[in-house]
Amino acid sequence: MEDKNQDIEINEFMIEGRNAVTEAFRSGKVIDKVYILDGCQDGAINTIKREAKKRNAMVKYVTRQRLDQMSETGKHQGVMAVAAAYSYAQVEDMLALAKQKGEPPFLILLDNIEDPHNLGAVIRTANLAGAHGVIIPKNRAVGLTATVARTSAGALNYTPVAKVTNLVRTIGELKEKGLWFVCADMDGTPMYDLDLKGPIGLVIGSEGEGVGRLVKENCDLAASIPMKGDIDSLNASVAAGVLSYEIVRQRLGK
Amino acid sequence: MEDKNQDIEINEFMIEGRNAVTEAFRSGKVIDKVYILDGCQDGAINTIKREAKKRNAMVKYVTRQRLDQMSETGKHQGVMAVAAAYSYAQVEDMLALAKQKGEPPFLILLDNIEDPHNLGAVIRTANLAGAHGVIIPKNRAVGLTATVARTSAGALNYTPVAKVTNLVRTIGELKEKGLWFVCADMDGTPMYDLDLKGPIGLVIGSEGEGVGRLVKENCDLAASIPMKGDIDSLNASVAAGVLSYEIVRQRLGK
Repeated sequence: MEDKNQDIEINEFMIEGRNAVTEAFRSGKVIDKVYILDGCQDGAINTIKREAKKRNAMVKYVTRQRLDQMSETGKHQGVMAVAAAYSYAQVEDMLALAKQKGEPPFLILLDNIEDPHNLGAVIRTANLAGAHGVIIPKNRAVGLTATVARTSAGALNYTPVAKVTNLVRTIGELKEKGLWFVCADMDGTPMYDLDLKGPIGLVIGSEGEGVGRLVKENCDLAASIPMKGDIDSLNASVAAGVLSYEIVRQRLGK
Repeated sequence: MEDKNQDIEINEFMIEGRNAVTEAFRSGKVIDKVYILDGCQDGAINTIKREAKKRNAMVKYVTRQRLDQMSETGKHQGVMAVAAAYSYAQVEDMLALAKQKGEPPFLILLDNIEDPHNLGAVIRTANLAGAHGVIIPKNRAVGLTATVARTSAGALNYTPVAKVTNLVRTIGELKEKGLWFVCADMDGTPMYDLDLKGPIGLVIGSEGEGVGRLVKENCDLAASIPMKGDIDSLNASVAAGVLSYEIVRQRLGK
């Protein structure tokens, strides 16, 4: 793929909150240091302390003020960890993962999604719906920040995320490898009437603008979610969830 | 229902952002005042100005600092409006709405959801999936704040939201009126294998705790979303979206 050499970014950064820190340990991620609110003694914190000891992570007891200062999300829940890195994956890694699992590839591509909560929620959904990776464009996209990691609820430890220079070019390259692309589009065919069982790339756009024109033109199919209401569109991460689970349903033959 | 007299709360508050303000006008909501960033001239703002004039809303041009000060969400996009009220609805209103549309009632009940982004996204999903209302418990629930209104993307203007004292009691009363209750539960029956076409209340719990024990015991069915991944649960609003659209699919006979 196109981004062979430039796509591996290493960000040292903070993991915030009990669930995210516990998941980071559980997934085998390298944790350099854990900051714990001084005096905090409950079960979840004790589990984190044990994990830290077992895995040779340094534990520092700090004040609430110090945690608040360090926190990017404001939701540290008394614990923060410094991870070695969240690194971006390669698109090839995702295809290899699908092959290894013996499943037709299922990738989620995000066009113009700039909200870190949406990106985190999509990575979380991708993990649970059995997608093999999430692809985001380099420009106009949010990176793998602490907010993304937290809202992914640990999924960022398992589900590969790749950043590509040009979504249209990546779609072209993946088409050559046999993937079909379906974009979320209000004017598309009702999702139930499309065959979404094969190797697939699901393209989700931003809430305001939808999928970009050029990206849409390069998709094979356009899928709509039935809308009965008065407003325009679902939240982008909810739309990604509903469409992903339509793919799951079809693949399960339900 | 139980809360006849206490459930009508009137909150005067701010609507933030272009989409939310435009939707508020479009829905016929009474807008007292619109604050617009001085010098802002683009199409979306001009539309809001015209609407304000037509509907006798006072327009005030203010500095960015003033908007930032007033903003609760930090995302005013150069425009904020003061609405007369978002009032809570009665559960009876929702049943009346279903009757008026000639549809079996479809209500969404939230147990322990405290995140305003999740509440807003669920109201938005409820609107588009054709649910007749959202019911939240009085205690431990977030109210209809500006963040909820903004993340609902205008759906709060259309979809009734009721606040009840005791979710279990409300479930009991609605069962007497013929509704079945299905709760989201990891250990439940796969959602595809349940009949969700009749008059239904869908109960969604918080991400950490799920649906409370007592509430769960009072549900007729427990529905699970297939989980292929490594982490525990979907974001609550994504889970609500996936389950709501399973109800939509079954009702459409797809």
